[in-house]
Amino acid sequence: MILAFDFGGTKNTCALFTRNEQGAFHMENIARRASPPNPDYAYDYATMLELAHAVLRGRAPQAIGVSFGGPVRASEGLVVLSHHVAGWENVLLCEQLEREFQTHVVMDNDANVAALGETKFGAGRGCASVFYITVSTGVGGGWILNGEIYRGANELAGEIGHVVMDPNGPPCVCGRRGCVEQLACGPAIARTARAQLEKNPARGEILRGLLENDLAQVTARRVNQAARAGDELAREVMDNAARALGFALGNVICLMNPQRIILGGGVSNAGEQYFETVRAAARANVMPELREAVDIVPAALGDDAPLWGALALVT
Amino acid sequence: MILAFDFGGTKNTCALFTRNEQGAFHMENIARRASPPNPDYAYDYATMLELAHAVLRGRAPQAIGVSFGGPVRASEGLVVLSHHVAGWENVLLCEQLEREFQTHVVMDNDANVAALGETKFGAGRGCASVFYITVSTGVGGGWILNGEIYRGANELAGEIGHVVMDPNGPPCVCGRRGCVEQLACGPAIARTARAQLEKNPARGEILRGLLENDLAQVTARRVNQAARAGDELAREVMDNAARALGFALGNVICLMNPQRIILGGGVSNAGEQYFETVRAAARANVMPELREAVDIVPAALGDDAPLWGALALVT
Repeated sequence: MILAFDFGGTKNTCALFTRNEQGAFHMENIARRASPPNPDYAYDYATMLELAHAVLRGRAPQAIGVSFGGPVRASEGLVVLSHHVAGWENVLLCEQLEREFQTHVVMDNDANVAALGETKFGAGRGCASVFYITVSTGVGGGWILNGEIYRGANELAGEIGHVVMDPNGPPCVCGRRGCVEQLACGPAIARTARAQLEKNPARGEILRGLLENDLAQVTARRVNQAARAGDELAREVMDNAARALGFALGNVICLMNPQRIILGGGVSNAGEQYFETVRAAARANVMPELREAVDIVPAALGDDAPLWGALALVT
Repeated sequence: MILAFDFGGTKNTCALFTRNEQGAFHMENIARRASPPNPDYAYDYATMLELAHAVLRGRAPQAIGVSFGGPVRASEGLVVLSHHVAGWENVLLCEQLEREFQTHVVMDNDANVAALGETKFGAGRGCASVFYITVSTGVGGGWILNGEIYRGANELAGEIGHVVMDPNGPPCVCGRRGCVEQLACGPAIARTARAQLEKNPARGEILRGLLENDLAQVTARRVNQAARAGDELAREVMDNAARALGFALGNVICLMNPQRIILGGGVSNAGEQYFETVRAAARANVMPELREAVDIVPAALGDDAPLWGALALVT
C-alpha cells in the first residue's frame, strides 16, 4: 500500500496504490483539490494530510512517494522553494512526512517524477532512456538515463525550456532571448497568435470566431482548436511553435540519443498534426545516422504522471 | 595486470598497467606506433598484437580494455566500422581478443573511453557527471552520468559536434549547416583565419610571419600561436571559435547540468585565454541559477586518456 502526493502549486492530489491479484499496482483511490487564490505552505500541507486520510481510511501506508512542483534537493528530502506558493522555502518535507506517517518517504521535483512515471507506467515503458518534456505555461523536462532519474550536479538537469534557439528571439524571464520556452510554450503560442491577428485583420476567421472577436481571450488551446478546424493563421502559429520545439529536440537527440522523447503538459493533447510537425523538424535537425532514432510521442498518463512516478520512487 | 589497447586510426597504442605497492594502478609500459598511409584492419590488428607482446614480455594479462576510434556496439564487443581504416566493418573484436589472450575483454569508442579515463584518473576525478569533448579535426563527445558511461539508445550519444548552432552557418559534412564542429574545430579555425587573411591584406602580421606568407600552411595551432603572440586577427578568430563552443556548452549545461565539462583534443593546449572565453560565453548562455555551475577545464591525460579509460573499463 503506497501513498503518492502531488504538490502541484495550483492543486494538490493524493492517491493510494495497492497491488491487484497479479501483483501489479493499481490506483485504488484518488483525491484532488484545487487551491484557492494565494495558497501558502500551511494550506498545502494541511490539505494534503486531509486528502491522505481520505484515501487511506484508517490504513497505514508502507511508503510515500512525493512529487513537488518546484526545485527540491531530492537526496536531502528538502524543498528549496515553490514559485507559486509562499512559505515553502527550505522545508524538510520528507522528514516531516516521515514523522507524520511513521514510514519511508522519497521526493523529487514534478518533472523528474513525471518522467519516471511515464517511463515505468506510461508512454516510455521498456525504454532505458527517456526525455520527458512538459510544454504548458512553461517548458520543463526530466531525464531517465540508464533506467534511473538523472538529476545533474545541482539537480537542475532537464531545463530544455531555457536552451537558447535564437539569440535574437523574444526576451525570456531568465534574462536571455530566444529560449525554447519563449518559442514553444502555451503563452508564447497565444501571444504570437494575437500579434498575427492584430497585424492581419483579414485573416484568422475561425480563430476570431472561437474568441468571439475578443483577442484578449486567445489561448494556445483555442489556437490549436482553430488550426484543427482549418484556420490557416492558427495553423501557421501552431506549426512555427512545433518546428521550434522539434528543432531543439533534434539537438537534444544529437547530444543524448534518448530512446524516446515524451511530450506532456497541454501540448500532449495537441493532436497528430502537431506531433508530426515536431517529428519532421527533429528529423531534419539530426545527423543522418540518427534520423530513424527520432521517437517523439505524447504522454500517456496526463495529470496522473506525477502520482505514478511518486509510486515508482518508492517501489 | 591490465592490458589497454587504443586503436586510434592513425596510430595504435598499447599499455600495460600494474598495481603499485599502495594498490593503485600505474602505467608500467607503453608502446605506440604511427600507421603508414592507408593502413587496413589486418595491419592494425597485427600491429596491436606485436605491441601487446612487447609490453607483456611473456606475462598474461588479467583483463583487456579497448578504445576504438570509430562507432562500436559496446554491449556486443562489435566494431561497426572505422572512418579512417578499411576492413574494420562488423569485426567482433572482443571475441577475437578473448580467444587470442584467453581473458576478459571490454571495448568502447574512443570518446566514451577517454571520458571515463579523464573522470576516473584525470581532470574529472570525484565528479559523478562529466561531459568530455574532444575538439581537434572534428568535435566529438562522451558522457559519464551517475558515475557510468551513458551511451544512448543507439550508442550515438555525445554528438555535440553535430548540434546546430546556426542554421545559416557554414555547411557541414553531415549535410546540415552551422553545426558546432563547423564553428569550433581545428580545420574551421584554419579556414576562417585563411579567409580573414585573404580579405584583410593589411592585418595578421604575426600570423603571416609564422606561415612565412604561405596561407595554405595555416593550421589552428598556428592561429592560436599567433593569437598568444598578440596578433589581433588571429585573436578574433580564436575568440569567435571559443565563443561558439562556449555558447553551445551553455545549452548543454541547461539541458544536462553536468558537474564538469572537460575539453580534450588539440584545444586542450590552447591556453587560458581560450578557456576563459569559452567559460564566459557559457556563463552568458545559462540560466542565472546555473552560472556558478559552469565548470569547464582542459583535459589532463592528453593522448593517454583512452588508455586510462580502457583500464577503467575492466577495473
